[in-house]
Amino acid sequence: MEPASKTYIGIDPGYAITGYGIISKVGNKLSVVDYGAITTKAGVDFPQRLLTINDTIRGILDIYKPDYMSIEELFLYRNTTTAIGTAQARGVVILEAARAGIPVYEFTPAQVKLAVTGYGKADKNQVSQMVMRLLNLKEMPKPDDVTDALAMAICLANTGTGFAGKAVSGYQYGRYGYSKRNEFG
Amino acid sequence: MEPASKTYIGIDPGYAITGYGIISKVGNKLSVVDYGAITTKAGVDFPQRLLTINDTIRGILDIYKPDYMSIEELFLYRNTTTAIGTAQARGVVILEAARAGIPVYEFTPAQVKLAVTGYGKADKNQVSQMVMRLLNLKEMPKPDDVTDALAMAICLANTGTGFAGKAVSGYQYGRYGYSKRNEFG
Repeated sequence: MEPASKTYIGIDPGYAITGYGIISKVGNKLSVVDYGAITTKAGVDFPQRLLTINDTIRGILDIYKPDYMSIEELFLYRNTTTAIGTAQARGVVILEAARAGIPVYEFTPAQVKLAVTGYGKADKNQVSQMVMRLLNLKEMPKPDDVTDALAMAICLANTGTGFAGKAVSGYQYGRYGYSKRNEFG
Repeated sequence: MEPASKTYIGIDPGYAITGYGIISKVGNKLSVVDYGAITTKAGVDFPQRLLTINDTIRGILDIYKPDYMSIEELFLYRNTTTAIGTAQARGVVILEAARAGIPVYEFTPAQVKLAVTGYGKADKNQVSQMVMRLLNLKEMPKPDDVTDALAMAICLANTGTGFAGKAVSGYQYGRYGYSKRNEFG
């Protein structure tokens, strides 16, 4: 009997570039399924850009039928001028997870770093190196958004979606109106 | 020959309540077509809430086939804890405008107040009273999100979608990564 296989899609949302990375986990072994970036051009009508992202994500979910989605929790600390746009892109992505019945998990950057490298303050390069090693990639996926998306997927696969097979523990209203965490979060 | 009639949908986006208001303008006469609120429950999975908003908006656009959509420009000044959630709700709304080929216009709260009451610093009650008067409503639509949505629609109908029939002038990258304004904005 084959060990249970699960497929995870990680997302790094953005209105200019949305990175996605799909991995599978069989037993403790991770392997890469596909990855890429959905890009939309500056100057194109913003709602049209969201439509491109939404349509493409729906197509990707339809092809790979991942069991779980992992996506970054959005913060306002960095660049508030783009946060509103990024959030809108995030919305049109997780919307399609709901449509496809795929549970969505979110993690902070520190949680991702910790799960991928074992160190919550790892730098970008350390995360990239570990993503390549864990997925046995010969070269660094580009752009960075793709590596970040793969790191999101690894984070969920390695953190687990529940304790001892238990489903997601709960749903908390956190800083940004909501926050869904698994029991290890 | 009948004067040209145009239909406008105004949106006040939110993940708990998204208000919508549809009006038509024949000549200079405004009249209400429909209005309401899409509500989603706290405690429901957030992606599922976005799906409810998205599906409902698609249905509304399909029924009324508005010519234009008017939606508030999002700011971070007020409650940053909910802004990320509100932006995601906004994304799943304007996405459907793009899918239906409906141009989206956005206005600041001051622009809406000015267009509806003639005074950019009008209070909530003054705006509500003018919405009722302009649309000949017997009672105040509830919740406030609905009145705000109707005010958005009136703002676009009265400001116009272009000078002397000209289409939208351009597309500027503003504070939040993008900002679409008509020539009167």
